[in-house]
Amino acid sequence: MDFNLKESMDVLERTPRTLESLLDGLSEPWIRRTEGPKTFSAFDVVGHLIDGEETDWIPRARIILSRSPDPRFEPYDRFRHWTRNVDRSLPSLLSEFGKLRSANLALMDSWHLAEEQLELTGIHPTFGRVTLRELLAAWVVHDLGHIAQVARVMAKQYREAVGPWVPFMPVLTDHEVPRS
Amino acid sequence: MDFNLKESMDVLERTPRTLESLLDGLSEPWIRRTEGPKTFSAFDVVGHLIDGEETDWIPRARIILSRSPDPRFEPYDRFRHWTRNVDRSLPSLLSEFGKLRSANLALMDSWHLAEEQLELTGIHPTFGRVTLRELLAAWVVHDLGHIAQVARVMAKQYREAVGPWVPFMPVLTDHEVPRS
Repeated sequence: MDFNLKESMDVLERTPRTLESLLDGLSEPWIRRTEGPKTFSAFDVVGHLIDGEETDWIPRARIILSRSPDPRFEPYDRFRHWTRNVDRSLPSLLSEFGKLRSANLALMDSWHLAEEQLELTGIHPTFGRVTLRELLAAWVVHDLGHIAQVARVMAKQYREAVGPWVPFMPVLTDHEVPRS
Repeated sequence: MDFNLKESMDVLERTPRTLESLLDGLSEPWIRRTEGPKTFSAFDVVGHLIDGEETDWIPRARIILSRSPDPRFEPYDRFRHWTRNVDRSLPSLLSEFGKLRSANLALMDSWHLAEEQLELTGIHPTFGRVTLRELLAAWVVHDLGHIAQVARVMAKQYREAVGPWVPFMPVLTDHEVPRS
């Protein structure tokens, strides 16, 4: 698919409700377990998505749109949420994520981005020049990747419980070595 | 996690709403595209989950609970939905899946399954003896695997659009060779 702003926002606006539908009200093991050391639980993923709203996607879009001579992005801290959310509950994080996402999409909508603005660039700390279009596409893929991750991490909690079904359920053996 | 019937049903009951939150109202490309020949689109996954409600999980649980001398499962047709749902819309499939799932969970709840019933066995056409506990755990993992698949298949539609982000978004390169 070619990037399309409206179709991208359609996905972005669905993510908070999707995670709430999947997670809200589940017992602690479903929410808190991971797929290995230094990997994210479902709770961690929601915290990480909040960090993205506050420090990644929209701040980087602003840098690009500022047309500054040095449109360099701040490096992104993938583990900010581990200290930030120590005392938080999942429902409060889900609610916060929903509010931040709505506000960010309303802001982006208010920019009335034109095609030529999507071609403007910023400088990523690792891989250099990227367009606003690529940044916004990455935001969508980032959401979807983390929804997939939450479902996978939950599935793996029943890896032993399914007995002989393991080879027929590829989600149980995806990312045996963490890939992100 | 050890298998727990209540915690399993908590996940099973959330799947229809999760898929509706993720998919309802999206444009056709998000819903209809796949990650390669003979693989499932989001639309196909919902059809496949309906097939599971009608022909797989509960029918197999009934076979186990019947304590027949030959508790052999019918082979499961993974592609029944391809002909069944040719003229259907995604909203109608989502609605049908929600109703079937609710009815199946209500039925299972009415069985008041005891621990010793979870130890009863049936015969899987491929891998032989399995317990009811393993079957029900597999039902949960099957749901979660397909939620992960839907998110992954959607993400891959933007593989080109993200430009240099590909190596940082593992969901884009998961299952390059279809695994199920």
